[in-house]
Parts: sequence; structure tokens; C-alpha cells
Amino acid sequence: ENIENGNLKPHDQIKSERDLGEEFGVNRLTVHKALAMLVSQGRLYRIPSKGTFVAEPKVAQEMNVLVGLSDQLIRSGLQPGAKLLDISVIPANVSVAKALRVHETTPVYYIHRLRYANKVPVALERTFIPFGYYPGLDSYDLENRSLYDLMEKEYSRPVRLARQGLEPVLATNDEAKLLEIGRPAALMMISRIGLDTEGIPVEYSKDLYRGDRHRFVFMTQNPNF
Amino acid sequence: ENIENGNLKPHDQIKSERDLGEEFGVNRLTVHKALAMLVSQGRLYRIPSKGTFVAEPKVAQEMNVLVGLSDQLIRSGLQPGAKLLDISVIPANVSVAKALRVHETTPVYYIHRLRYANKVPVALERTFIPFGYYPGLDSYDLENRSLYDLMEKEYSRPVRLARQGLEPVLATNDEAKLLEIGRPAALMMISRIGLDTEGIPVEYSKDLYRGDRHRFVFMTQNPNF
Repeated sequence: ENIENGNLKPHDQIKSERDLGEEFGVNRLTVHKALAMLVSQGRLYRIPSKGTFVAEPKVAQEMNVLVGLSDQLIRSGLQPGAKLLDISVIPANVSVAKALRVHETTPVYYIHRLRYANKVPVALERTFIPFGYYPGLDSYDLENRSLYDLMEKEYSRPVRLARQGLEPVLATNDEAKLLEIGRPAALMMISRIGLDTEGIPVEYSKDLYRGDRHRFVFMTQNPNF
Repeated sequence: ENIENGNLKPHDQIKSERDLGEEFGVNRLTVHKALAMLVSQGRLYRIPSKGTFVAEPKVAQEMNVLVGLSDQLIRSGLQPGAKLLDISVIPANVSVAKALRVHETTPVYYIHRLRYANKVPVALERTFIPFGYYPGLDSYDLENRSLYDLMEKEYSRPVRLARQGLEPVLATNDEAKLLEIGRPAALMMISRIGLDTEGIPVEYSKDLYRGDRHRFVFMTQNPNF
């Protein structure tokens, strides 16, 4: 509650379990469990031998409209950034071929990027784009230009509609290193198939977002009322 | 790919890392990392000293329409179930009061349920409902009736619209025990504020779904095309 109402600010240190127990008149095990839950939810973070601190509020990513991450971050007042880890043309494997509705071994761009918000790594993206529709994609600056923007402006083939799937996953060792987080950590894996204006699949992405930095929000309506 | 195309079925055992390395002509570290990633994503599961097995496919929960979990499960061909862990009338705390737009200490129902799909525990729900709008809610059978159904049919005050937030979190010890999973484990935390037909908040829920059983899917449109 003190975080919610602003009495405790990001990076403020939390009192000891003993002090919190006395303040709220509950036993230490209860305090311990409550803090563990808030850490597991990414509301608090721990630094070994230093203490427990209030985490930054999570970026609320609006899911009712399809917008690239760069635009999402700008809307939240954050500076987007990207580091290109890999771009190559590879033959589509079974999963990629199925998602993009192409034959296996069809050439696709594989783009692997680490994304930043205010210079903090927040997401790992692996994107597959059919080479045939976007030849020369690797000649653009994929660290400073939005992929959606390129697809629209340079190729006149924007992503109009996307089918997205959200799953909570555990960070592997390699993922945790790239995202600069400790383990265990919960990440949001977003699988996305993007369709162009003719309904042709032109993007297949597997994004991994840091769970302590991002939450995904949307409105839903009951179809009966 | 073998899981995707059905060559490997749920609960099939995976070959040893050594055998997989030979089969695909890659070194054992690569196989080890690939399996770790599939375990972290809930596609495979491990039983200590037994081996690694293919997980059940996840239930794809459709998020474009607002439907209670019971109906969601029935649509997926699964048998819903619930165990009522607690129902009580409590004074709204700061977070609950803020979500339901009531004064602090306003009486609300607190409903804590463990939800099942085909007798397997899949979600933990904590729901807060304003007592004033739904008096006597505790007299109904909340293990066998859908809460949304009750709110509509018994009180003529259905949930029409909801604002939902999805966050990946780590399971705490207590949560893992109730959901019958090992740790560390990734869960999906869904925070939901449900509004009635007049736009009055009538539901505040914090649900925790097992990440190895559920994924959340929806379509999104690009507002510019």
C-alpha cells in the first residue's frame, strides 16, 4: 500500500523484517512471506547483503492496438534503443514455415535484437520475416529504425493485424545474462504472427520481456452485454 | 519440431542428451541448452531420476472476449472445477478501495478459489466484490457455479467490460504447493477490474495461472491500416 500511494518511491530501501513485523503487529514469517511475494511479482528487488528495495513501476504496454515497441516506449516517455545481435538469411524450419505459411527451407530473415528502454535492456526479440517480400532488409539500420516503420515506408507492406500469444516463462541462463537480471526470473514470452493488408503472414516473432519492467494491459468486453 | 508436428506426443519421454546430440549432429552443450529452454517454456517437463517428457499442450485462453474461466475451459473441452479456500467479508484496503472506487474499509467479499481443469489445479483466484451490490453472495455454491453467472442471473448486475493487466511472476512457495508444481515456476498474474453496464467497478481480481498449462491469445489491429 505504501508503494501504491507513493509513500515509498522507486529504489527506496524497505525496513527490516523485524521492524516491519513490529510496525504492523504481525509475526516475522508473515512479513517474510509478504516480501517474498512482492519480490516474486517484481514490485521489490533484493541486493544481496544490501537489502530490499522498491522496484521501478512497470511499463504498461497497451495491447488493444498493434504498435511496435519503439512507439510503445515513446508513448510511455521512455527512450527506445536496440542492439542488433544477429541478422541473417536462413531457410525456414518447420515452426517458422508453419507460422509464415511458406514451404520449409524458404529463405527468411532472422533478426535477433536486444531492446532497451532508457538504456536498460528490457526485451529480447527474435523475428522471422519472409525474404521474398522484404529483400535488402539487412541494409537498413535496425538499431535505430523501427521494423514496422521500415516494412510500411520502405516496402509499402505494413503489418495490419497480429495474432499474439502471451506465456510466462523462466529466463534461461543466456537470456538472463543478455537482459542483465538474476535468476530465477519470470519473463513474458510473446509469440506473434503479423499479417499484411491482404492477410498474408509477413512477421513471426518470439519476444521475451522482462517481467519486472513490463506489464501488458487491455480492455475486454463481455459479448453478451 | 517433433512436438509441433505430432511425432512426439504429450508425456512421451525425450531421448538422452547424448542420443539427441548424435541424432542432430550437435554438441551436448547445445542440446542441454535447447532442452533447458523448452523446460523453461513449459513445453517439456522433468521428473528427477526419471527423465524429460513432453508436456501437455497449453490451453489457449481467448482474450478478445470477456468470458469466465469455467466457460473458457468448457470451450476447450475441459471439465472446470473449483475449491473454495476462503470467502469472507472484509474491509477494503487501499488497493482494493482504489480498484473498486470505494472508500477504505467499505465491506467487500474476499473470495479465494483454486480452479481446476480436468481435476488438475490450474489457477488461484483472489476476487474482491463489493458487498453492497451482491449481498448474500456467500450463500451460493461457489465451487460449482460460475461467479460471472451468479452476478448476472441472481443479481442482474453482470460484468460488461474489464480492464486486465498481465504480468509474468515467479510462484511463491505457498502458491506452488496449492498449484502442485515445482519451483522455480513462472505464473501469469492477471489483475482485472470488471465494470458493470453502468461502468461501476464490481470486481477486482488477482488471478495466478500456471504457465505450463495456459497461454493467452488475442488478435490486435494496427490503428493506421
